Amino acid sequence: MWADRRVLDLLGIELPILQAPMAGANGAAMAIAVSQAGGLGALPCAMLDGERIRAEMGTIRQQTAKPVNMNFFCHTPAPPDAARTAAWQAALAPYYGELGVDPGAAAPAPARAPFDDVLCAIVEDVRPAVVSFHFGLPAPDLLGRVKRAGCTVLASATTVAEARWLEDHGCDAVIAQGAEAGGHRAMFLATDVTAQPGTFALVPQVADAVRVPVIAAGGIADGRGIAAALALGAAAVQVGTAYLFTPEATVSALHRRALADARDDATAMTNLFSGRPARGIVNRLMRELGPMADVAPAFPTAGAALAPLKAKAEAAGDSGFSSLWAGQAAGLGRMTGAAELTRQLAADAAARLKALAGG
Amino acid sequence: MWADRRVLDLLGIELPILQAPMAGANGAAMAIAVSQAGGLGALPCAMLDGERIRAEMGTIRQQTAKPVNMNFFCHTPAPPDAARTAAWQAALAPYYGELGVDPGAAAPAPARAPFDDVLCAIVEDVRPAVVSFHFGLPAPDLLGRVKRAGCTVLASATTVAEARWLEDHGCDAVIAQGAEAGGHRAMFLATDVTAQPGTFALVPQVADAVRVPVIAAGGIADGRGIAAALALGAAAVQVGTAYLFTPEATVSALHRRALADARDDATAMTNLFSGRPARGIVNRLMRELGPMADVAPAFPTAGAALAPLKAKAEAAGDSGFSSLWAGQAAGLGRMTGAAELTRQLAADAAARLKALAGG
Repeated sequence: MWADRRVLDLLGIELPILQAPMAGANGAAMAIAVSQAGGLGALPCAMLDGERIRAEMGTIRQQTAKPVNMNFFCHTPAPPDAARTAAWQAALAPYYGELGVDPGAAAPAPARAPFDDVLCAIVEDVRPAVVSFHFGLPAPDLLGRVKRAGCTVLASATTVAEARWLEDHGCDAVIAQGAEAGGHRAMFLATDVTAQPGTFALVPQVADAVRVPVIAAGGIADGRGIAAALALGAAAVQVGTAYLFTPEATVSALHRRALADARDDATAMTNLFSGRPARGIVNRLMRELGPMADVAPAFPTAGAALAPLKAKAEAAGDSGFSSLWAGQAAGLGRMTGAAELTRQLAADAAARLKALAGG
Repeated sequence: MWADRRVLDLLGIELPILQAPMAGANGAAMAIAVSQAGGLGALPCAMLDGERIRAEMGTIRQQTAKPVNMNFFCHTPAPPDAARTAAWQAALAPYYGELGVDPGAAAPAPARAPFDDVLCAIVEDVRPAVVSFHFGLPAPDLLGRVKRAGCTVLASATTVAEARWLEDHGCDAVIAQGAEAGGHRAMFLATDVTAQPGTFALVPQVADAVRVPVIAAGGIADGRGIAAALALGAAAVQVGTAYLFTPEATVSALHRRALADARDDATAMTNLFSGRPARGIVNRLMRELGPMADVAPAFPTAGAALAPLKAKAEAAGDSGFSSLWAGQAAGLGRMTGAAELTRQLAADAAARLKALAGG
């Protein structure tokens, strides 16, 4: 059925569909459903502690023997910067006042930890078929341990230069993340958001530049998108936003409602919620401060000052201070189970390719 | 060969490839070559006066009986604004000083005229098979005259809302211009550049929203891109940047050199050169003022103050003040004749579709 089997054979999967690991938005249930359906399910580990990662992977292991992807961030955490934090809180002061929120109030803030020795030891214990990284790759000694544990290594590139770097540093396949993609840009060499290429331009240029297979990501939410990605030279796709519509997604009701209403022009890249550029549905904070603002402190610290605003607003049914991650193809999303979605995407893509060639 | 014949039949062409009209970058020669090869050649009329348009169309008529597209802008020119012009000249003052240029020096500045009664009369005389518009559509009486002259009408949309509007106002097919595209964004309802969708997300959502056929544009520069656009639901493609590499392109040697060097992440959207957002290769002016700057006056007046800088710099082999329009797929461009390129693109797309289905 699939003309290019490189990713299928590399990862040991049946369908050329990887579920994008979405930190905070999916756990074991989605990974199990996608892997059981023949795609590659993923557990995003960046916002989980070691104990929780072991527990989720234990659940996955009980439910499926199929390959699964463990995903980690590998940013270098910025040192605390009291001046920038103060400037950020000052920028948010009108909102604290309006919502009657104490800036110092305890509220659950997202913790995003980079891949380290402790997490690597878990990988060595669990030995997942696949480990993927965002924001580059970990230090060579850690990467070597992951590879010696028998894991296939993937990572995301937002430019041709990043794809070449990942290949040179040992990635077994490269995820080409076009600008349409929801959530955090993988940018680790690139610094200029305005120059980030879209999926249409990125995928063929990456495919020409590297020898490892390319997995296309960004704006792919139905069978047409998968067929198109394969036409561009990708050997598989990574799909995120479409899976946010499944019952397995662990997103809030507010996020789910925003996704259901999102049109093609509803999203923008923003650094307000974490300090790094990420695509989300435009809401009040993004509109009023501008989606990319120098005042937001470095990743991953920007979210802490927003946490009490988010908590208070969400309690009142207001998502104006929440990160509503979504890609530009959210308008194509439909409510379906994650397993059914995986099978449907593959069947639609295959049918589309057949129809196009048969004319 | 082509499964979806709607655009082929509508326009009377053999290959699903429209050459993008590129004001200032192509004239009769490219239009003739593309139309003779079986695609739809285009004469961009926005920067030509009536006499020149009649002469170019006369040349085209002598060389081909195939369908050709006459393209016009339909913006509303901004009234003169002395204060904004002064602010813009003030922002450029350091450059005038550095280059030793008199801000008031006469230099050829781009004139961009909107479609009007005079241009419409030319269309009624020439009766091209196709007329396409950028920045929306002309007033209903003018559009009615174009349609009564027997011309098929196309226009570009950058969002689903714009595509719906164009269909509602009488467009026979809609060009879905993704954010990857080079040159001016067609935006006429949309105002926020940061929310502009990429080709991958835009095309299927437009295809779902309108009944008229969709022509995909943006990031399409080889057979893979055409196959992908058809997979997404487009019935044809419009290709611009790839034609800038042909000898028929009337671009400067400096622009040609910048195109040859352009990588995937070399471009950004900028309003500095005309006052409207357009994608071009990042150069000194874009880097130093920021690609999108509030200080640039309204379209199409921004270029006048730059003209003497551009002239002086270009004479010294420096393209730092020139608009270097290009899309994000410039890296895929190859030097070939426009007719040969048209045939090659179609053959490669057909082969790609066949290979994908045959696996």
